[in-house]
Amino acid sequence: MPAHPMKLVTIICEALAHAAVTRLLREVGAHGWTVFEVQGVGAHGERTGEMAELGNIQVEVIVPAAVCDRLMERLEKDYFPKYGMVAYEADIRVRRPGKF
Amino acid sequence: MPAHPMKLVTIICEALAHAAVTRLLREVGAHGWTVFEVQGVGAHGERTGEMAELGNIQVEVIVPAAVCDRLMERLEKDYFPKYGMVAYEADIRVRRPGKF
Amino acid sequence: MPAHPMKLVTIICEALAHAAVTRLLREVGAHGWTVFEVQGVGAHGERTGEMAELGNIQVEVIVPAAVCDRLMERLEKDYFPKYGMVAYEADIRVRRPGKF
Repeated sequence: MPAHPMKLVTIICEALAHAAVTRLLREVGAHGWTVFEVQGVGAHGERTGEMAELGNIQVEVIVPAAVCDRLMERLEKDYFPKYGMVAYEADIRVRRPGKF
Repeated sequence: MPAHPMKLVTIICEALAHAAVTRLLREVGAHGWTVFEVQGVGAHGERTGEMAELGNIQVEVIVPAAVCDRLMERLEKDYFPKYGMVAYEADIRVRRPGKF
Repeated sequence: MPAHPMKLVTIICEALAHAAVTRLLREVGAHGWTVFEVQGVGAHGERTGEMAELGNIQVEVIVPAAVCDRLMERLEKDYFPKYGMVAYEADIRVRRPGKF
């Protein structure tokens, strides 16, 4: 089976947003993700103090392009205003695309 | 020295597959990798319960394209049938390509 | 707001280089990064024993392309000779580009 193009979405946020992010991932139709506990030093440019020095998580989720767009739009509209959060997408190729 | 195109292969799997994955990485000729302990919520699409809620690892390894293909083929043939596992590749550019 | 092209720079190094790497990130103008504690098995090709089996960190930082180049050059010139270290860059698209 050849590798299949997908999107990897990475969300770095306060740990307190964990449950809310998980709820959104289920809502947009993601089937699996991983959660890392990280030390984060937040963006100090425009929004000082927005992300705490400790207590952040990084969530990584593999999704088809359409789900990526839906996820990003929801994050931007409903989550960015409420939580210290960064989100980005990258192109990956997965095996077993049927899982996502 | 300019950046050199390589592949980053990411393997998310049950912690119990750690030794088997490490063995494969050595076999295909990888020279270094990192291991993260992660919380994973597995693919619930076709194979419910395949990956446990806890006890997963994420392995990241930088390899030349030829090694990436060999690694992916071996994972697919010999490891996917046995372990709860996801694998994907991405394009990166490294410094010091001689190390990989 | 559309996604904005940026670079993700990943640095894997000995934990003892943490403070030095952080200093460099501030110097080149990075505004935020995450730090992971990882188990690393180092490059055993040309430089045996350069990275310890334990006590490594992975630092991930989102930067504009110009900062990526400056960071990579400084790492290569001033840090690679001193520390067991690997650095690579990848293309990503972020929301809220003003933060970086």
